[in-house]
Amino acid sequence: MIVVLRPNLAQADIDLVIEEVAKLGYEPRPIIGKVQTVIAAIGDERTHNSLDSLTTLPQVENVLRVQKRYKLASKEARPTPTIVEAHGVRIGAGEKFCMMAGPCSVESEEQLMTTAKAVKERGAVFLRGGAFKPRTSPYEFQGLGKPGLELLAKARKEFDLGIVTEVLAEKDVELVAEYADILQIGARNAQNYALITASAKTGRPILLKRGLSMRMEEWLLAAEYVLAAGNPNVILCERGIRTFETYTRNTLDLGAVAIVKNESHLPIVVDPSQGCGRADMVVELCKAAAALNADGLLVEVHPNPAEAWSDGQQQVDLIRYSQLVEALKPFIAAVGRPPTGAVATVSPTRQAITAQALG
Amino acid sequence: MIVVLRPNLAQADIDLVIEEVAKLGYEPRPIIGKVQTVIAAIGDERTHNSLDSLTTLPQVENVLRVQKRYKLASKEARPTPTIVEAHGVRIGAGEKFCMMAGPCSVESEEQLMTTAKAVKERGAVFLRGGAFKPRTSPYEFQGLGKPGLELLAKARKEFDLGIVTEVLAEKDVELVAEYADILQIGARNAQNYALITASAKTGRPILLKRGLSMRMEEWLLAAEYVLAAGNPNVILCERGIRTFETYTRNTLDLGAVAIVKNESHLPIVVDPSQGCGRADMVVELCKAAAALNADGLLVEVHPNPAEAWSDGQQQVDLIRYSQLVEALKPFIAAVGRPPTGAVATVSPTRQAITAQALG
Amino acid sequence: MIVVLRPNLAQADIDLVIEEVAKLGYEPRPIIGKVQTVIAAIGDERTHNSLDSLTTLPQVENVLRVQKRYKLASKEARPTPTIVEAHGVRIGAGEKFCMMAGPCSVESEEQLMTTAKAVKERGAVFLRGGAFKPRTSPYEFQGLGKPGLELLAKARKEFDLGIVTEVLAEKDVELVAEYADILQIGARNAQNYALITASAKTGRPILLKRGLSMRMEEWLLAAEYVLAAGNPNVILCERGIRTFETYTRNTLDLGAVAIVKNESHLPIVVDPSQGCGRADMVVELCKAAAALNADGLLVEVHPNPAEAWSDGQQQVDLIRYSQLVEALKPFIAAVGRPPTGAVATVSPTRQAITAQALG
Amino acid sequence: MIVVLRPNLAQADIDLVIEEVAKLGYEPRPIIGKVQTVIAAIGDERTHNSLDSLTTLPQVENVLRVQKRYKLASKEARPTPTIVEAHGVRIGAGEKFCMMAGPCSVESEEQLMTTAKAVKERGAVFLRGGAFKPRTSPYEFQGLGKPGLELLAKARKEFDLGIVTEVLAEKDVELVAEYADILQIGARNAQNYALITASAKTGRPILLKRGLSMRMEEWLLAAEYVLAAGNPNVILCERGIRTFETYTRNTLDLGAVAIVKNESHLPIVVDPSQGCGRADMVVELCKAAAALNADGLLVEVHPNPAEAWSDGQQQVDLIRYSQLVEALKPFIAAVGRPPTGAVATVSPTRQAITAQALG
Repeated sequence: MIVVLRPNLAQADIDLVIEEVAKLGYEPRPIIGKVQTVIAAIGDERTHNSLDSLTTLPQVENVLRVQKRYKLASKEARPTPTIVEAHGVRIGAGEKFCMMAGPCSVESEEQLMTTAKAVKERGAVFLRGGAFKPRTSPYEFQGLGKPGLELLAKARKEFDLGIVTEVLAEKDVELVAEYADILQIGARNAQNYALITASAKTGRPILLKRGLSMRMEEWLLAAEYVLAAGNPNVILCERGIRTFETYTRNTLDLGAVAIVKNESHLPIVVDPSQGCGRADMVVELCKAAAALNADGLLVEVHPNPAEAWSDGQQQVDLIRYSQLVEALKPFIAAVGRPPTGAVATVSPTRQAITAQALG
Repeated sequence: MIVVLRPNLAQADIDLVIEEVAKLGYEPRPIIGKVQTVIAAIGDERTHNSLDSLTTLPQVENVLRVQKRYKLASKEARPTPTIVEAHGVRIGAGEKFCMMAGPCSVESEEQLMTTAKAVKERGAVFLRGGAFKPRTSPYEFQGLGKPGLELLAKARKEFDLGIVTEVLAEKDVELVAEYADILQIGARNAQNYALITASAKTGRPILLKRGLSMRMEEWLLAAEYVLAAGNPNVILCERGIRTFETYTRNTLDLGAVAIVKNESHLPIVVDPSQGCGRADMVVELCKAAAALNADGLLVEVHPNPAEAWSDGQQQVDLIRYSQLVEALKPFIAAVGRPPTGAVATVSPTRQAITAQALG
Repeated sequence: MIVVLRPNLAQADIDLVIEEVAKLGYEPRPIIGKVQTVIAAIGDERTHNSLDSLTTLPQVENVLRVQKRYKLASKEARPTPTIVEAHGVRIGAGEKFCMMAGPCSVESEEQLMTTAKAVKERGAVFLRGGAFKPRTSPYEFQGLGKPGLELLAKARKEFDLGIVTEVLAEKDVELVAEYADILQIGARNAQNYALITASAKTGRPILLKRGLSMRMEEWLLAAEYVLAAGNPNVILCERGIRTFETYTRNTLDLGAVAIVKNESHLPIVVDPSQGCGRADMVVELCKAAAALNADGLLVEVHPNPAEAWSDGQQQVDLIRYSQLVEALKPFIAAVGRPPTGAVATVSPTRQAITAQALG
Repeated sequence: MIVVLRPNLAQADIDLVIEEVAKLGYEPRPIIGKVQTVIAAIGDERTHNSLDSLTTLPQVENVLRVQKRYKLASKEARPTPTIVEAHGVRIGAGEKFCMMAGPCSVESEEQLMTTAKAVKERGAVFLRGGAFKPRTSPYEFQGLGKPGLELLAKARKEFDLGIVTEVLAEKDVELVAEYADILQIGARNAQNYALITASAKTGRPILLKRGLSMRMEEWLLAAEYVLAAGNPNVILCERGIRTFETYTRNTLDLGAVAIVKNESHLPIVVDPSQGCGRADMVVELCKAAAALNADGLLVEVHPNPAEAWSDGQQQVDLIRYSQLVEALKPFIAAVGRPPTGAVATVSPTRQAITAQALG
């Protein structure tokens, strides 16, 4: 760390800080500058206390951190890409582009099976769907709970799809882990370290969504909690950050894909549905995610979004999902990934017909 | 809700949306505008599904919400202020200004007792201090755990101070509730509804910190989770939001105090230490919070901040805490609150002496 | 507009608001809800005053806007794409992908000519380069001024490249318009309506960068200023917004491309250099922009970024620019655009050699 | 500056960076750390180019700035407070609390004179009012222009109030400076350095509003443009920043007052009207600003806000302004400032009567 001293200090004051740096376990190395003196504090910042506390000394203006705070999540720790395996599928750099698709919430057998069948036919390898839903208001649909998990299990069996589903509560971790191939930690729990650690310990791969206002470093540090708990299987999921924009629900930070590829060995997928909160932007954002060489997508799909029990506005219907899969192909090819699967046809819904009529 | 249709629709398209509004349980009332037609959807938005999902129809441009989403937390539900009682102290509008003070983390008996004694002598009625600490990095000090709680209990007994301490994990809720007079839900868990609900059910008053990127409505809805669980004792705590500013760790949104006083009957306190992350701004922000008629403060105090085990940079030492209590008096008087208690004197630390010397 | 009244009003209070709505030129249409009454105010919101001011009445809780605030910039006003022509090049939907490249600042004849030659050989059709630079500090290099413009003119002539350059001051509008094929309005001036209007009146195409904290609506309204001044030739340029993230200088909001394509007929290009402020992310972000069907790119290129006089950290060198042009090809092909031009080879710089060595 | 090198570099690579640091005019001082090597670059960062550009070298991980970027605006440059004098009034630390009040826009003689009389009687020393208005939409009222300035001059004469009014365009700087005692640079032009410099050169005091997404450092650097142009009379004005919150139009960053008092000698005033965009919060925010020892307030006041031509929602009426002035007194006294003036009484408007009736 670099301890920046205030200008024009007496030597006694400089010495006091030097002494304090040593006391906190670093080797102090003062550097007299043209304008200001700084003290380089030699030591491993990850095994010592931070020196930030020194800013409470009147002699200290600022403390600058030199090292990255994450270790296991960094490329230095592991220069080759982590490949996460779940339900027999390999997810990560260089692997097939991984489609995870399904409804926001599991609502009914019919809704889930219709969706599962459709996404499977279009090459998805994972079915997503919430049985436990974190809702901003206590009066909104909170998910079917265990019956929802059972429906997911049924779809899993019938269509040979892996299951990605969110766990909301420590007390449900074991239960959800029984049904899920990948445990999802949602954006609101992205710094709920108790839940993250409990989930990590199940040994299931963890899909870790980025929190609404998480810096990249903080996100990688949340992943570090999983890795430090002995579970190497983390998939990061960019799902939009909170900004001042109101046209979209969140601002999808696609640059996060490039940053993760720069800094870490972990796979990263993109959730454009949460990322923008508008079905009419999902296809375009998926193309961009593919072009950035994301390792896959998490897409919300519903047979009838206008009547969905949660977040209908961001779910694409089956027709648009077909168009999406088709539209993605050249971009996946352009990054040199193998294709994701074949595409079947579905009969359009009433709204979709009108949509076509309206142009 | 108001469903805004796209311009120039055919009647059949308008009818389709009207039909859908009715199907979702609202009474549709179309209004033909000069430029655009809107459909007023009559019904209680809090007991029906949101119509946001209708934006997936090509005929719909936008959906506007009319009602507030929180119910029990609103002034309409309860026009008189909620007064929360804990450790024999009344917290809320019109009551004594409530000082909650203590270290960021409980570190040792000496550290805690020194601080407890000092803040008690200066009129604090609650001792704050974390035994379980949510840390951005898994390599940082995570709190003493149960032994920390026991130290808090000791300080409680010795100095007759109520205890405010954070609960991080559902599995620890019962344990922490045994020791705490007020259970704190931290900013990172402000939308961890499982933890919030479990904590609410202990019957202990809940101090609910605002999440880093929580809108006021979302915060009040998190409080609504506590109220809906049957626990009326919620204290809101503004502790800074995340913005683009880098001079401070967070941006303390003091306007939140005025908003809560406008919209809700719940007490609100301010945590300036977390709110700015800099000890040198804490006193000034406390004055502003008092002037806004906040119901109290949560202030981080440490006998030797430069050597604190966590967040030393934002903790004031005992001398500055004395100055703070003194400095607050005219502002508390100006809002018509009774004073918080008497002030004793402490002998200054070495750094404080230097601070004085430096001016 | 929709005027939302507070719950439980007396009829006299409702009548007072109805009267006020009428007085302000709208036709009031009250709708009695289950919980709250609203007044639909019929009228063209763009030719009347906003009713937002009614929130100062104690009877009014909120005012909701129904119409979009921009007119000429909207798809309703012009359903077919605007194609901007400059220097004989057509920019817009369906046209060739338009590469604009060059240094952040014009520094010297050698620097500019080297860069111009290199980007021309790689298919760029416009040369970008600042002669007037808006710098956060008054002590930083402010641009060469007129001599910089003259160098741009020389490069224009020698390499048959159109010139895109920023105008910072009203007093320089005429001068810059003499040299520029496209006048750039920078992010800091994106709501400097005096400069925007003066620039619009020169008749030159305007490249309008998005302001650091501009919502999409505000950006389109800034474009509306150009259109309303009688100049139809606006190119929008997404260049990153300000968020809480510190890894990058700005957060490139690639979703903005999809939004502009949804809402407007205007061309949009992307500036990834400003957008992230890091040369190591530029190539990846360019691919994403191409995949989103942006109409072109504005890329900062410098023969020796480490010694650039401004913003070296975000400029790619000539080798990386070559790689970029090559890497973009499949993505431009995937969106069905004609290719941008041939690619030549350059000899690598010392740093680039090291880069290769380091892997 | 501190140049942080990537881990595990060969000596040749370290030497290359050292050489480059020297070439850019700094004295390089390498420090071998436990984990990483850094190069301290000795030199005045304000007179040399930034070394940020070195991050384009593959050997460099990061560059950390040690010095503050502003000079003249800092306390180091001038340890005693700047007192700005205008219209015979002294503004700054230790002086009388300075009330600047008046309508958002000058609309008519009657509106302006009524307001001017009322605010004068309540102790205001400056009349604010826009003759040139920066409006987000080109279709909104743009101000009366020169006739508006003439009305301000009339009010100035009749009520002996200083005039604070915004200048929007370089071409109007001379004109506005003829009428204004203090030239206001608005938030949208806070980085319009051409306008700032032109305004500075008139010699008039400059009231520099903070831009919507300006960091404190950037704001002080904008002030530095004025100071560097030879005009020492800058008043900073905090007026809210853009965040994710939607309850308010902006988030008033009251902490900015404390930061400016820490870092600079310049006076700072607060504009709560713009700061929150809601008349119902203005009084409370004013109290907080006074408690933070701001040097004054800029408050929007209108005789009939519901019918204002611009931003009625944030303007207080004459009654509320009276209440505000009264409510502020104890807070101004608490910070040890002399009172601002006597308060007269006005007869309430119709809306105000209803407000009272409604409670």
